[in-house]
Amino acid sequence: MQVAVIGGGHCSHEVSEMARELGKRLAEKGHIVICGGLGGVMEAVCCGASEARGVVVGIMPGEKNEANRYTKIAIATGMGYARNTIIVKSADVVIALPGEYGTLSEIALALKMNKKVISLKSWDIPGTVRVETPEEAINLLD
Amino acid sequence: MQVAVIGGGHCSHEVSEMARELGKRLAEKGHIVICGGLGGVMEAVCCGASEARGVVVGIMPGEKNEANRYTKIAIATGMGYARNTIIVKSADVVIALPGEYGTLSEIALALKMNKKVISLKSWDIPGTVRVETPEEAINLLD
Amino acid sequence: MQVAVIGGGHCSHEVSEMARELGKRLAEKGHIVICGGLGGVMEAVCCGASEARGVVVGIMPGEKNEANRYTKIAIATGMGYARNTIIVKSADVVIALPGEYGTLSEIALALKMNKKVISLKSWDIPGTVRVETPEEAINLLD
Amino acid sequence: MQVAVIGGGHCSHEVSEMARELGKRLAEKGHIVICGGLGGVMEAVCCGASEARGVVVGIMPGEKNEANRYTKIAIATGMGYARNTIIVKSADVVIALPGEYGTLSEIALALKMNKKVISLKSWDIPGTVRVETPEEAINLLD
Repeated sequence: MQVAVIGGGHCSHEVSEMARELGKRLAEKGHIVICGGLGGVMEAVCCGASEARGVVVGIMPGEKNEANRYTKIAIATGMGYARNTIIVKSADVVIALPGEYGTLSEIALALKMNKKVISLKSWDIPGTVRVETPEEAINLLD
Repeated sequence: MQVAVIGGGHCSHEVSEMARELGKRLAEKGHIVICGGLGGVMEAVCCGASEARGVVVGIMPGEKNEANRYTKIAIATGMGYARNTIIVKSADVVIALPGEYGTLSEIALALKMNKKVISLKSWDIPGTVRVETPEEAINLLD
Repeated sequence: MQVAVIGGGHCSHEVSEMARELGKRLAEKGHIVICGGLGGVMEAVCCGASEARGVVVGIMPGEKNEANRYTKIAIATGMGYARNTIIVKSADVVIALPGEYGTLSEIALALKMNKKVISLKSWDIPGTVRVETPEEAINLLD
Repeated sequence: MQVAVIGGGHCSHEVSEMARELGKRLAEKGHIVICGGLGGVMEAVCCGASEARGVVVGIMPGEKNEANRYTKIAIATGMGYARNTIIVKSADVVIALPGEYGTLSEIALALKMNKKVISLKSWDIPGTVRVETPEEAINLLD
């Protein structure tokens, strides 16, 4: 499956560890990880997936060279926030970690597209499935 | 000013009347109304603005000929929900009426872009200014 | 009709005068002029249309405030060259003036969309209709 | 490197074989192949790259499930022809095979972005490097 992981471009150490574990588990299951390719949650999930030799695609708001160092494949949209639409549209499932308005926009777009959205300690929006750990999130993919 | 009015593609009669009054008042003040060009709230605000001979721009998800009959200028993006980004990015102020996930995505994107977002009985998201009537919304534009 | 006028962001005085005359004639006929909102051919056609009190829409690659001073309505896409697609998709007819690769991309996209493309001393691509003066271009719109 | 391969959605057997050989050689060199994910040249290059166990990314105009069967990673833009911009913007080098106006738009956009464009029996546009065989194209990547 192609799983989009979304969340803040800046995050706490705790959230970063959670994202890294999630990335690792997704890659171990053989899923392709899609994210925004920048820092914070995005970098942590890419790092975790890379540790497990997974495939990581970053859908960049701008240029390829803005991708974090763990992004294997960088898609340069040059479209700013409109790239949020592409991230969720490319996903079979969306997993949201803590983030701000950008993350909220992606949750809303994913729900609008009738995608399954798992909120891992992220925004509490009706229609999302809330979980507390990466393990719970992974279990919901089966 | 260019004012984006966002809200559901389907709406109640009460919301429709509210959108129509808002469109009329915006046009009377000389503002350019930008919206998604489809039905529901979008059609009602276009109708109201047209009654006051205002300029109405519809940023369409698909083709020009999908625009409601009150849309004077139809911009065909062919980009689906990614056009939501363009609607709010083109606005000096965003006024949100009741709507579903599409409206929520636009509120979130506008807040991400640091735009002023007036929630006229719409989603209750931190960072928006909540009002109860079109008149209150208009007064906040000055 | 909505007529897209495309051409270089920098241009000679001669081309500028041609664009200005074209804009004026389009506005006098009551057509809505759509362009890229920047300088060169875009600014000249906006200037001409404004002189005839026409409606001019600029589809900006970036922000609203990058629009030339004659653009009445500025749509901020934030999508860089992807906005070229929107310009031609929004047009009933495309008129191309001299320009470089950006103009060529718009001619190609318009032909791909089966739009009528009038080449006013612009790129010589099979499928375009070539004319030598703004008057000839205008006559082809009827 | 990320190499974009562009060309017609329908093509002759001869062009198809050329695209397949090109895809195979690109994958053997360890390059990531980016294309539009549909049929014709796109399918053939994906097929060739898959034979050599390469990484193939399809930037789809619409949905994920429209990808040809050889596309490993399908990015769903939902943006129609605007996705052409993303294909070339994501590439370090663009290789163009025979195609129609869509291919021409991509060549023009790539040249506008100052990318190296190798024309393998494709459109003859100033600024491209023309070659006759996949081997010659591959040699130009070093």
